[in-house]
Amino acid sequence: MDSVNTKPPSGMRDFLAGDLRARRQVLATVRGVFESYGFGPLETPALERLEILQGKYGEEGDRLIFKVMQRGAKSGGEPDMALRYDLTVPLARVVAEHQARIGKIFKRYQMAPVWRADRPGGGRFREFYQCDVDTVGVGFGLADAETILALTDALAAVGLSGFEVRLNSRKVLHGLIEVLRIDPARGADVLTVLDKLDKVGPVEVVRELEERGVSPDAIPGLLSMIQDDPFREEFLRRALAPPEAAAGGETASGSGTGREGLQEVDRIMALVAPRLKGGRIRFSPWLARGLSYYTGPIFEIYHPGFGSAIASGGRYDGLVGMFAGRSIPACGGSLGIERIIPLVAAGGGDQGTVSTAEVLVAVWDETFREDSLATASDLRSRGIPTEVYLGDDRMGEQLGYASSRGIPFAVLRGPKERDDGTVTVRDLRDRSQAVMPGRDLPGYLAGRLAGDTG
Amino acid sequence: MDSVNTKPPSGMRDFLAGDLRARRQVLATVRGVFESYGFGPLETPALERLEILQGKYGEEGDRLIFKVMQRGAKSGGEPDMALRYDLTVPLARVVAEHQARIGKIFKRYQMAPVWRADRPGGGRFREFYQCDVDTVGVGFGLADAETILALTDALAAVGLSGFEVRLNSRKVLHGLIEVLRIDPARGADVLTVLDKLDKVGPVEVVRELEERGVSPDAIPGLLSMIQDDPFREEFLRRALAPPEAAAGGETASGSGTGREGLQEVDRIMALVAPRLKGGRIRFSPWLARGLSYYTGPIFEIYHPGFGSAIASGGRYDGLVGMFAGRSIPACGGSLGIERIIPLVAAGGGDQGTVSTAEVLVAVWDETFREDSLATASDLRSRGIPTEVYLGDDRMGEQLGYASSRGIPFAVLRGPKERDDGTVTVRDLRDRSQAVMPGRDLPGYLAGRLAGDTG
Repeated sequence: MDSVNTKPPSGMRDFLAGDLRARRQVLATVRGVFESYGFGPLETPALERLEILQGKYGEEGDRLIFKVMQRGAKSGGEPDMALRYDLTVPLARVVAEHQARIGKIFKRYQMAPVWRADRPGGGRFREFYQCDVDTVGVGFGLADAETILALTDALAAVGLSGFEVRLNSRKVLHGLIEVLRIDPARGADVLTVLDKLDKVGPVEVVRELEERGVSPDAIPGLLSMIQDDPFREEFLRRALAPPEAAAGGETASGSGTGREGLQEVDRIMALVAPRLKGGRIRFSPWLARGLSYYTGPIFEIYHPGFGSAIASGGRYDGLVGMFAGRSIPACGGSLGIERIIPLVAAGGGDQGTVSTAEVLVAVWDETFREDSLATASDLRSRGIPTEVYLGDDRMGEQLGYASSRGIPFAVLRGPKERDDGTVTVRDLRDRSQAVMPGRDLPGYLAGRLAGDTG
Repeated sequence: MDSVNTKPPSGMRDFLAGDLRARRQVLATVRGVFESYGFGPLETPALERLEILQGKYGEEGDRLIFKVMQRGAKSGGEPDMALRYDLTVPLARVVAEHQARIGKIFKRYQMAPVWRADRPGGGRFREFYQCDVDTVGVGFGLADAETILALTDALAAVGLSGFEVRLNSRKVLHGLIEVLRIDPARGADVLTVLDKLDKVGPVEVVRELEERGVSPDAIPGLLSMIQDDPFREEFLRRALAPPEAAAGGETASGSGTGREGLQEVDRIMALVAPRLKGGRIRFSPWLARGLSYYTGPIFEIYHPGFGSAIASGGRYDGLVGMFAGRSIPACGGSLGIERIIPLVAAGGGDQGTVSTAEVLVAVWDETFREDSLATASDLRSRGIPTEVYLGDDRMGEQLGYASSRGIPFAVLRGPKERDDGTVTVRDLRDRSQAVMPGRDLPGYLAGRLAGDTG
């Protein structure tokens, strides 16, 4: 038995009290912001029927789904369930299943673990939290702007600033493909290449575009369009230009889809920019986002502390209706909560054994047990979280326990204090002591704890 | 695709916003009480290595463990992981794995789902929450009393009263077996029969005892001892009696183990009874509890609203050390949280679509979108949770949306209000309206919401 591997499964984590402090605080803050927008909580089972998940995440995704055996099946049996792989497919299932209760407009957030049978490592886990906010049932407009505001408000509320929202629309990208006369069959490919510009640089992008058979004539235009912000006016002019106004002949016709995309971007910018806290929003015409299900505006949020996006989302009018048997418009976004938590939790070292209590009531000896319980119970009823020392160790060890767990105050009561009707309070940080009548204890500690914010 | 079964897997549940209100409130309240005692949170992965779980829950338990396939395994592969079946085995694993961080005394609570491949129905689920509080590393004493107090404080905090703590010690039961000269090999069997007295009555108990080969001489003694509270003194006398003092010869010798058990019971009663909120505690000498791992005090907590226990626990000094390779004392208890939640949540009907917002800002038409977002953002920054209506429907439908979601106030602003610099606030419960300058809106709503507690 003592040779058993007691580590959690690879890519999964145990969280002790100290690990959970920042983690829970971040989750609670985000939850508060989402609820302040009227997004309601949703909880779905960790398990879904296998048929619900399978085929929704591509071939590689199908392989990464953890499959669960039927009841009582021996090895060799058929799995019929699977662990949740993301929060979007369960949302689509819930929308189909609970249509009558949900009504026309459904605003929900879900913060919950998902499981992927990925190779762990490099900050990748096989069990990790996702944190999604979605609005189902309304088309383009306020909902798209509110998604971005809810996410950026949440980032600001957990103390992040200096982030940048990069906004585009899939329709702008389709327009780009159209006006540059790129074979639509190669469109997705080209967009994927352009999306890598920031990472791989223009030389590599040109090489990859040529590899994919994009006409050499189109490449300089493409590159000049995607490299800088000033491109934007250029692009606007090109894409918006109706055929008859096209002058130099670079583009023989404008793109209605592209124009629509630009209008979406403009409208979101106008709604979001004036009330974006602690960050900025800009049009990023080369932003493509990998997932093919987006149909309208798309965005990613970047922070100087990270190389990749800490939040992202967009409109995906085709996805949520997949189980309902009809098209249902929807938009939403997701916070990369596992990346945000360490950023907020920076510092503090190993806090595995940090206590939730502010006071330790030491126990002089067995005859003081009831006395100690009474003191602790009194302090708790005044809202002061209090531990009683539960072992039968010497006073030095009791105080060491409190210090090692970050408990700031210890209450000591021995035979002398009992005779005098007093208690001694020790501040374990500076080792100062105060003696007072027992009845003054709760008031004294409440005052010290309210005054001590450090 | 439209023929897909969109129900959650059998025995598992979707929780919409309204379902979660009482649920989250109960969990938060319980968490607050546990933390006020200095029990720290612990989170472990939903999955454990199969070898960690297998063989810990008996043969039937092994069958009810959901087994998870290896990465990428096709059907026919070997499962190597399993879904958490309870919170005790993961605790034992954590104690072994994190010994250095945890130190000598470890107080933790865990409130988390567990999964069992049981036949669902009759209030039995295949995914349900357990809610455990345990103290690891200290022997019998304050910790045992505090476990009961933390659980009963939690029950009182969620609004339950009139509960009864039934207390016994496994050592009392062993003493009983000993003084009645029951074959120790049949001991567990006999205790299981006695534990059913409340359910099946004395006639059936006698029959089952005879069936199990208990000497007919012992049965009247047994029955008289277990039937009523007055038995207690009788039992005390018998079990405590040292051999030389044994008079009539009914028992040729006392039981040292039994006496120890009675002392444990007495000491816990003395510590717990004076500060038990909203309930009482009594000695229940026939209480056995099914799980064989208990070694000292055991208890169950009953409430008039339920036929079975709503909480239970005890001391199990042999269990937590199973992975650490040494014996580690521990005691703890568990709240039957899935039973408690409906009791607290009684009434309210279908609240599937209840909103987390207190105010709906209606949107007159497209030209009012920015105005509406600004109003909502202003209200949220004053701490008032506020939804903007996200669709483009008529005013009647917007107000209907708010009513159907239990949002009490709607803010209306059309061309007339814009010209006047005013807003109209409608109370959707009594349909009263108030018109005021826009700048007065946050103060007015804050006041109305603070005043309205119903």
